[in-house]
Amino acid sequence: MAPLKKTTLVVKFGGTSVADPECIERISKICIREAKEHNVIVVVSAMGKTTNTLVDLANKVNPNARGRELDMLLATGELVSIAVTAMSIQKLGHPAVSLTGWQAGFITESAHNKARIAEIKKERIEKHLANGEIVVVAGFQGITEEGEVTTLGRGGSDTSAVALAAAFKACRCDIYTDVDGVYTTDPRIVANANKLELISHEEMIELASLGAKVLHPRSVELAKKYNVDLRVRSSFEPEKEGTKVISLKRIKEMELTKAVTGVALDTKQAWIGIMGVPDKPGIVSKIFTSLSKRNISVDMIIQSVPRETYNDVAFTLPKEDLKDALAICQEILKEIEGTKIVSDSNIAKVSIVGAGMINRPGVASTLFNTFAKEGINIQMIATSEIKISCIIAPDQAEKAVKAIHQAFELETSSEPVIA
Amino acid sequence: MAPLKKTTLVVKFGGTSVADPECIERISKICIREAKEHNVIVVVSAMGKTTNTLVDLANKVNPNARGRELDMLLATGELVSIAVTAMSIQKLGHPAVSLTGWQAGFITESAHNKARIAEIKKERIEKHLANGEIVVVAGFQGITEEGEVTTLGRGGSDTSAVALAAAFKACRCDIYTDVDGVYTTDPRIVANANKLELISHEEMIELASLGAKVLHPRSVELAKKYNVDLRVRSSFEPEKEGTKVISLKRIKEMELTKAVTGVALDTKQAWIGIMGVPDKPGIVSKIFTSLSKRNISVDMIIQSVPRETYNDVAFTLPKEDLKDALAICQEILKEIEGTKIVSDSNIAKVSIVGAGMINRPGVASTLFNTFAKEGINIQMIATSEIKISCIIAPDQAEKAVKAIHQAFELETSSEPVIA
Repeated sequence: MAPLKKTTLVVKFGGTSVADPECIERISKICIREAKEHNVIVVVSAMGKTTNTLVDLANKVNPNARGRELDMLLATGELVSIAVTAMSIQKLGHPAVSLTGWQAGFITESAHNKARIAEIKKERIEKHLANGEIVVVAGFQGITEEGEVTTLGRGGSDTSAVALAAAFKACRCDIYTDVDGVYTTDPRIVANANKLELISHEEMIELASLGAKVLHPRSVELAKKYNVDLRVRSSFEPEKEGTKVISLKRIKEMELTKAVTGVALDTKQAWIGIMGVPDKPGIVSKIFTSLSKRNISVDMIIQSVPRETYNDVAFTLPKEDLKDALAICQEILKEIEGTKIVSDSNIAKVSIVGAGMINRPGVASTLFNTFAKEGINIQMIATSEIKISCIIAPDQAEKAVKAIHQAFELETSSEPVIA
Repeated sequence: MAPLKKTTLVVKFGGTSVADPECIERISKICIREAKEHNVIVVVSAMGKTTNTLVDLANKVNPNARGRELDMLLATGELVSIAVTAMSIQKLGHPAVSLTGWQAGFITESAHNKARIAEIKKERIEKHLANGEIVVVAGFQGITEEGEVTTLGRGGSDTSAVALAAAFKACRCDIYTDVDGVYTTDPRIVANANKLELISHEEMIELASLGAKVLHPRSVELAKKYNVDLRVRSSFEPEKEGTKVISLKRIKEMELTKAVTGVALDTKQAWIGIMGVPDKPGIVSKIFTSLSKRNISVDMIIQSVPRETYNDVAFTLPKEDLKDALAICQEILKEIEGTKIVSDSNIAKVSIVGAGMINRPGVASTLFNTFAKEGINIQMIATSEIKISCIIAPDQAEKAVKAIHQAFELETSSEPVIA
């Protein structure tokens, strides 16, 4: 039995990183290289577009398929990946073993299709690590206490990896994907967008929520909770260090907080306004309780200064939920004694994120000046401690992102910019 | 909770019966129809050519992949099938649940890729049957006591079905395939081959071993051991009754044993002769022990009358094992003091099978007369209680099968023929 190494590393590979035998050999080499230094736990997603193919099959067989049987089907994708990844590592001469979600000890709640991890029973992985094996774990899946197969829903494999890193007190959790890190904004919009070397969990959550598709916010939230250091990097260019995602506290200690870390664009939102709502307690609560019961997640909520005895309440939500949400609002309009409902799905949300903006009052004015200079009308504004979001017309969105990226000098340097 | 029905039925569907959503809907209707009368346990194979696709993938990733990781990979095929079958049954309005091999309680030995079933823990299936659900079980797979996923090897899904039928004392085990039963011979050779209504386990084992690809002999052996009634039928023509496979004892009680039930042709064999072997104890044992150690299964073994102090020993074996077997024989030739080794891979084995032949001495002579009339030279003969096999030249094999089929009047009636 090989002596257990001092540090454990979790590495996670998404679908594009395990799409074919060539990709699988590439990631196997990464795992073996890391195994020289660490105990390595590997989490893999389903190969390429497998999950979509399985969903299509389910829809053909039963368009209403969901719950338990859909989980049974979807969980197979990752099982294929773990088996071939372990085979590939073995071929390259390193011992490896694949473990399903249940073999790896992922105990979840029983909410099928979107289960949350309740516990990781570590014994089995520990035994294999002690044998000197690279342990390849199926992401995205677990098992209930009753022995039912579950899947974790969106961002599931990232979440599996972070949960393992937390449970095994890993030195780091590397999330390998098909891009080489997190950028100051979408490089398809701003060609000289900068790769970030460092970003806090908090900023990453905001950027992820705002449309940077690299990491699912759920996994970053878990990393924040358990203080797991993440690294976003490319399996196609593993020599690059990627972007480090660490705690805001440590970034503050290093005095590396930035006024603006990144600019995000989200064109998949719509807004609804409920006009003339009486100014009395409990009304807003009624609206958002009704929406959350139907599983519609609301993003920006804006209620401005009351006009005499009534308010206008507006909120943004995913475009795909607009129709359902309008119906719900219409239902409760009488009950809450509002006057009318308005909506717009032709909008774009442009946001700046930066953990350092709270102490730098110039940030907001720089942002609004930039919009003004470009002749862009702001329809709504919402702010949090580390974020300012503005709703504008979608045909002006790219122009806005470019101008803001330049105004905060994000393209010239990856050094912190003091506003 | 619906009251448990009096009888339990196991139905098994092979890969061609679950190849696409249309096929799956077809078999779902069969299951629901049977569920009106029985508690139904469904065993499904992987969809269409899935298993071959998975084996190809494994070979691309690691040509030496085997054992544990190959099982992990291959077991996924059946998981897809059970999930979509359960979804499809649900769509048609009947409650259904899918169970993996481990969920269904299939405990196996730890021999990966060819595990034998040690036990079926029945509690979970019983619970779902008591709920009125059709239980869809993944064939071909199980789990060891240590929690490792195993597969059962060739004929695995048929074997899973028969094992369930034995464990649950099922009234019957229906094996659905793409043909409507077992025939007196291969209908591609003899156009008017007859579908058998009834055949004994013993005869079916011989026919299956001899090249009738409908049922794997391993599953029929298990059915014989536990006295499980099988029915071979088509999922594409479920209104047909197919062929009943029952115990020889019951066929004898019904006085329905036939002199000749079927004619089988096997062109995938070769033979090896070891010449001039000294006539003393232990020699033959040495030869076949060496072969079985290398996992080469020998079929016919022929040793004729000794000539003075030495023997010639001949045996048939699968063509694909000929090269290995010749090397082994060459190795031990000196040790056993034989003179030389001869072999031929250009042979065909024609066999007749019939549980009633033992009491009807005319059968062998009818067979040999038929060969003589057709001018076919017999190279080797071997017999068992219910079988006579002859090795002949392969270019005469089809002619032989046709003539024998006619000589025993197999095409005219499915009534027993008294020789």
